[in-house]
Amino acid sequence: MASTTAHKLAKSQKEISVSEFFEKNRQILGFDSPVKSLIMGIKEGVDNSLDACEEAQILPDIVVSIDRVDQKEYRVMIEDNGPGIVSTSMPNVFGRLLYGSRFHAVRQSRGQQGIGISATIMFGQITTGKAATARSKVEGAEAAKEIDIIIDTKKNAPVILREDFVPWNEKAHGTRVEFYMNGRYVTGKQSVIEYLRQTAIVNPHATLTFIDPDGKRFIFGRATEQMPPLAKEIKPHPDGIELGTLMNMIKVTKEKSLVKFLQNDFNRISERVAKEICNASGLPETTKPSNLSLDSSKQLLEGISKVKIMAPQVDCLSPIGESLIRKGLKHVLADVKPEFYAPPVSREPKVHTGNPFLVEVGIVYGGDLPSDQQVQILRFANRVPLLYQQGACVVTKAIENTDWRRYGLEQRGGSGIPFGPAIILVHVASTKIPFTSEAKEAIASVPIIQEEISLALKACGRSLKTHLNKKERKTKTRSKFEIVQVIIPLMAEKTAKIVGKPVPDLRGTLTKIMNVVWIDDSVTYDKGRHRVKVLVYNYTPKQQRFRIHTVLPKGSLDMASCNLKPLEIKEEEKVTWELPRIPSTAMYEVSFDLKGMDPEAFSETEVFVSGINPVDVMGADPLPGDWDLQGVNFTEVEAPAVVQAAEDDEEEPDYDESGEDLNDEQ
Amino acid sequence: MASTTAHKLAKSQKEISVSEFFEKNRQILGFDSPVKSLIMGIKEGVDNSLDACEEAQILPDIVVSIDRVDQKEYRVMIEDNGPGIVSTSMPNVFGRLLYGSRFHAVRQSRGQQGIGISATIMFGQITTGKAATARSKVEGAEAAKEIDIIIDTKKNAPVILREDFVPWNEKAHGTRVEFYMNGRYVTGKQSVIEYLRQTAIVNPHATLTFIDPDGKRFIFGRATEQMPPLAKEIKPHPDGIELGTLMNMIKVTKEKSLVKFLQNDFNRISERVAKEICNASGLPETTKPSNLSLDSSKQLLEGISKVKIMAPQVDCLSPIGESLIRKGLKHVLADVKPEFYAPPVSREPKVHTGNPFLVEVGIVYGGDLPSDQQVQILRFANRVPLLYQQGACVVTKAIENTDWRRYGLEQRGGSGIPFGPAIILVHVASTKIPFTSEAKEAIASVPIIQEEISLALKACGRSLKTHLNKKERKTKTRSKFEIVQVIIPLMAEKTAKIVGKPVPDLRGTLTKIMNVVWIDDSVTYDKGRHRVKVLVYNYTPKQQRFRIHTVLPKGSLDMASCNLKPLEIKEEEKVTWELPRIPSTAMYEVSFDLKGMDPEAFSETEVFVSGINPVDVMGADPLPGDWDLQGVNFTEVEAPAVVQAAEDDEEEPDYDESGEDLNDEQ
Repeated sequence: MASTTAHKLAKSQKEISVSEFFEKNRQILGFDSPVKSLIMGIKEGVDNSLDACEEAQILPDIVVSIDRVDQKEYRVMIEDNGPGIVSTSMPNVFGRLLYGSRFHAVRQSRGQQGIGISATIMFGQITTGKAATARSKVEGAEAAKEIDIIIDTKKNAPVILREDFVPWNEKAHGTRVEFYMNGRYVTGKQSVIEYLRQTAIVNPHATLTFIDPDGKRFIFGRATEQMPPLAKEIKPHPDGIELGTLMNMIKVTKEKSLVKFLQNDFNRISERVAKEICNASGLPETTKPSNLSLDSSKQLLEGISKVKIMAPQVDCLSPIGESLIRKGLKHVLADVKPEFYAPPVSREPKVHTGNPFLVEVGIVYGGDLPSDQQVQILRFANRVPLLYQQGACVVTKAIENTDWRRYGLEQRGGSGIPFGPAIILVHVASTKIPFTSEAKEAIASVPIIQEEISLALKACGRSLKTHLNKKERKTKTRSKFEIVQVIIPLMAEKTAKIVGKPVPDLRGTLTKIMNVVWIDDSVTYDKGRHRVKVLVYNYTPKQQRFRIHTVLPKGSLDMASCNLKPLEIKEEEKVTWELPRIPSTAMYEVSFDLKGMDPEAFSETEVFVSGINPVDVMGADPLPGDWDLQGVNFTEVEAPAVVQAAEDDEEEPDYDESGEDLNDEQ
Repeated sequence: MASTTAHKLAKSQKEISVSEFFEKNRQILGFDSPVKSLIMGIKEGVDNSLDACEEAQILPDIVVSIDRVDQKEYRVMIEDNGPGIVSTSMPNVFGRLLYGSRFHAVRQSRGQQGIGISATIMFGQITTGKAATARSKVEGAEAAKEIDIIIDTKKNAPVILREDFVPWNEKAHGTRVEFYMNGRYVTGKQSVIEYLRQTAIVNPHATLTFIDPDGKRFIFGRATEQMPPLAKEIKPHPDGIELGTLMNMIKVTKEKSLVKFLQNDFNRISERVAKEICNASGLPETTKPSNLSLDSSKQLLEGISKVKIMAPQVDCLSPIGESLIRKGLKHVLADVKPEFYAPPVSREPKVHTGNPFLVEVGIVYGGDLPSDQQVQILRFANRVPLLYQQGACVVTKAIENTDWRRYGLEQRGGSGIPFGPAIILVHVASTKIPFTSEAKEAIASVPIIQEEISLALKACGRSLKTHLNKKERKTKTRSKFEIVQVIIPLMAEKTAKIVGKPVPDLRGTLTKIMNVVWIDDSVTYDKGRHRVKVLVYNYTPKQQRFRIHTVLPKGSLDMASCNLKPLEIKEEEKVTWELPRIPSTAMYEVSFDLKGMDPEAFSETEVFVSGINPVDVMGADPLPGDWDLQGVNFTEVEAPAVVQAAEDDEEEPDYDESGEDLNDEQ
């Protein structure tokens, strides 16, 4: 029995072509529901167009259209103004899975697998039985090449049904692909138009035109004429490289010595570092790479891990950038008017298995965002929005494993997706995004990537918490002040009326009750400038003299607009003011303008105090210890005493703290 | 610029071998962290062993061992007593990705892709640089064939470094694979031992031995000598078949007429149905399949969708079964002593894109399960536990989209993973599991599969709710009784003491206050028998006479054990008793045994009443309308009046409802 089974099995064992595999496992490519299939197909086409334009440094002009053929079938067309595809390459690009130009390169790009567009054509063919049509023209060519193509899935090979040269005069160069596909066209949160909208947000240099099945035209116009910097192709970074990869590199290197191999075949290894590695590995610098055995390769890997190697340059990556993240979020959120945009956090590049990557995070809070639901998560990988498989993504895992209660969001048990009126945006850029599947919908849980996302989330979370703390403190302080300032005068008035005496001046009394310096700051925006006002109320019985400090975006302060000249500005951003004496019951205002920033780039100041007992202050924290104050001496600067309430009050009454009696002035 | 880019791109475009692809995208295969890699490798080996044994109908005896080589490197060995692999097939089975025997078959099996074991060997080779060793012996062979093998990833082809015939006398047949791999060995929720434990749960016919890196030996012994029925290989089922697949089948069929093609190349199409389909498609029965154009193929697909076709036979699937699900859960839960096992739900087979599948669900509640955490989810696909990617799985989605508040679990907003002391087990069995990636960690969100899981969850959820309702009602009833029965007598005693009179008999008074028939049932298990007791307390001022009903597992009732003979038993499971007259303040007990069931197969009865006004009853619902009572007449059966409290009380005092006075007896 066992023997016959073995022979029976042997007979049925055979090779599976990669297209055959994906034909039967199309869900792995993301073609697992009619709605998703249509989005996937368009995504593969648009990603390719954006990549091609970026490589040729052409501002992309991409048109997507969907026609309804019948209840289930659609005709999809994607056309770009990219560099075009050389005609001999067209059959393999569109008709063979696992074929492409970006797979072997260490550089950030959208497509990296060589599967997407041919898989789309295959899925179209499986569901409709129809061929796809591809047309392409390279610069200087007289005509475009056009082919009708299907895929022989048993062989994973293109079959060309028709080929022609056709005039395409309106295009100097470009590519168009048309395919038929069963699917379902919908609008909403997971839809073609939402994919295009999110794509436009992170690719502001592109113009995307979409013609929906009803012929309605949507244009996402370009917001900038500036191309994103071309991400540079680099050598593999030695961090986290695997033994097998190293041995493959040793096998194919042209270098004749170990030190040259290290220096020339890797990113970020200088001659000095290469020598250090040889030393740390106990291998002579002159060793011929081809002579390295398994054991010496292991030694070399050991050696690499012992030597400190610089992080990769950022120029192999193309981050979205803080300003664009803000703009992008603002764009998404035009209607909901959030109360707070946390300053986006962009981490330094790190390396996973030899591939540089970096993480960017932005958080938006409040406004009309729903407060009784889970926060909304916007995920991007190499500037491509990820609409599906949120639950499988390392981004989600990092969010779930962050204790958001610390940052002011609601979260049961301190894990899971938090609840609250917030949107969290996370972008991972890498020369190689480790997707969980060929559908490129979720990023795998690579520990170092998760860690980087967590750190960025926490940094952004701290800004959120500062904002929420401040908001809460302000609310509390304000309500206390309001009560005291409304009720006490009312009582005084009533009492005065009853006893038939005039209403006393209550300032001293109120001061005694409050016994606090209250600092209230606000930011407004008008005509290209942010106006910051810091109001300092002295509700203590004594005069006060101290410093206030704040951190401003680098170089934004307009010195001319300051009503009080700063005592010191450090690192272009840390600003200190020495306040004049503020008499009891008086108020002092510090105000200034910030220039050259987008409206959403700055929304609140954080004010610190020094030279005063912090327990006497409400509305500002004491200056943190790491704010280096050594350069500042408490000099007796004579600042103008622009004191409002106490203008006529040269000798301020220093109320003593003992008496129970009402104010004796008046 | 554009033209040079096109040519530059053309030059760099090349074919990518499937091994090269996975070498760079190992996370897609599940090798994305050291802990997971080790589990994945073992899983691929054990899955293959279980499949091979099942095909040869051999009771599996599988040994897994892990040795620590150094801090990062492990040596893994997996050995089985399966049918063995014919020696000529060995290089491709272990050294080529996308090669296998199960890919083209429509039958339930663990491995379906032809990737797993060769990918494991490749990953081992990448991380350690070392070859794998495979040994196999088929029945009747004198010696085993042993090879040392690596994979040429550029070519996706095996490279044999050594081959030998070696004696393997202790095995009549079997296969052993050994590989080295970088990884990290841990214990806990996601670990090798947990994977093996869950595998043992759903494969009780297997003996799994595990030797951990410290040499500690764990044995999961077989619980049954009975092989699971061999899942039959079937033809594709016509439901949901795609046009492309249909056209491929048309291309390769040997049949000469459409009607024969339909009848012989598909599952569940009889001659009659085949004729109906031809008719519905408007195509002559005699059409030669090879003559079908694209349009007629579409017509045929239309026709298929119009004709009702039987669901696939269940015998191409190998469900776990209700009893095993119960046992499995009990096994997992030995320590936590859950209060309730909802009867597992097994759905009828359905079809997704031509592949039959079925869903099984079990729920466990209470005991020491933590009540302040999310419920635990146990996912299985074709009897393989899924430990990772819970968030990406259709099982999780179905659970999240079920409103568990209806079934007594806590869930914010009625969606998301619910909270509570519960475990939800879901098994999906199919001739083709649509995994989200080659790592086979999560099932894709195919709508019909999600729907089936939802229905099963709801059915199981209803049992849970019934249990929780009953528990709550019992608790409430009990506490009301306790209060009345403790406080009133205390008051009476006190009052009697004060007024210097004897304590009155309060039964009548209590009865007046309660004015209810209380039904309290319980189930205990001892020595192979379940003992059910139904206690009926008459706390009304009148005598009562009515029927009680319950539903028991088919054929389980031991008639000899009944203290009161049932009035009627319908469908072997619906049992009705006619109770004797129960005097006011008296109690009557109905008790009986159930036999032949596992202890965990039955944990509570649901009792219904008829012949009494339901508002007078606590602890039992009125008989539902769909319980057909037409056969039962209210006959005046003279049942023995085994009445306890009222034994000496022939003429029961029918307390009137008007008086305010204390009981006048005594």
